[in-house]
Amino acid sequence: MADNILIRRAKESDVPEMLALVRELAEFEKAPEAVTVTLAEFAEAGFGDRPVWQAFVAECPENDALVGMALYYIRYSTWKGKMLYLEDIIINQAFRAQGIGNRLMGCLEQEARDLKLKGMCWQVLDWNEPAISFYRKFPDTQFSGEWINVVRSLS
Amino acid sequence: MADNILIRRAKESDVPEMLALVRELAEFEKAPEAVTVTLAEFAEAGFGDRPVWQAFVAECPENDALVGMALYYIRYSTWKGKMLYLEDIIINQAFRAQGIGNRLMGCLEQEARDLKLKGMCWQVLDWNEPAISFYRKFPDTQFSGEWINVVRSLS
Repeated sequence: MADNILIRRAKESDVPEMLALVRELAEFEKAPEAVTVTLAEFAEAGFGDRPVWQAFVAECPENDALVGMALYYIRYSTWKGKMLYLEDIIINQAFRAQGIGNRLMGCLEQEARDLKLKGMCWQVLDWNEPAISFYRKFPDTQFSGEWINVVRSLS
Repeated sequence: MADNILIRRAKESDVPEMLALVRELAEFEKAPEAVTVTLAEFAEAGFGDRPVWQAFVAECPENDALVGMALYYIRYSTWKGKMLYLEDIIINQAFRAQGIGNRLMGCLEQEARDLKLKGMCWQVLDWNEPAISFYRKFPDTQFSGEWINVVRSLS
């Protein structure tokens, strides 16, 4: 277990390293070209006048680097009510299987409880078995593969 | 075309009729029991101290009733940036095929452009052919079926 890893809320100066983690995940998800957001847009969306995301990060003090993150926002389900939407949870390859993901998930659960949300939700690629196995460990968790994502770009 | 139908932003007094439309959609989606949100929670999430959703509604002035709605919130994509997430677009069965859906989609597109968002996104059930056909009419729209939804309830 990486007891030295510090979990804390993200601050604006973390954004460059967070974008690097996002790119790392996009590579793994076979879509590196899909990351088109700029550093400035990413920072503004989290720390501008009307923030739309928040995050917890995992920091390795020895080398002063971020090794993981969990980025989320509050969404509204017309069926359930307010929910925490986990957009991305990412742990750097070299720091996997050390309990960092569990600690980040614990912070998200506590945040959802503090905000009196109905639950947490997220998405996983159907071929990402390691992630699906990780998520199956959590109680009261349901998987549904019958929804299609639709994205309309505006230019 | 139902030219008499008025499209406007939702107000708090619309919430009971909106919840009725949500229940109508949940019946169609074969999950009526999944709607567990209360009227008070729905109203608070849209018109409380920290609103998390907004909506356009379609009103039929003749019978003073809501016949459609499009409920959305701003989400953050770590790949694309800020997006409009369309949680539900619902047209009452008796008012379909009269252009109301197109008008609601037009309002959403304009809202996304006004807010300088990168695009719009939503989900559709893989067996809901009428909805999929409707969405295929819009330009620059991509469908992806390889994501699994995960929901963890907190009690």
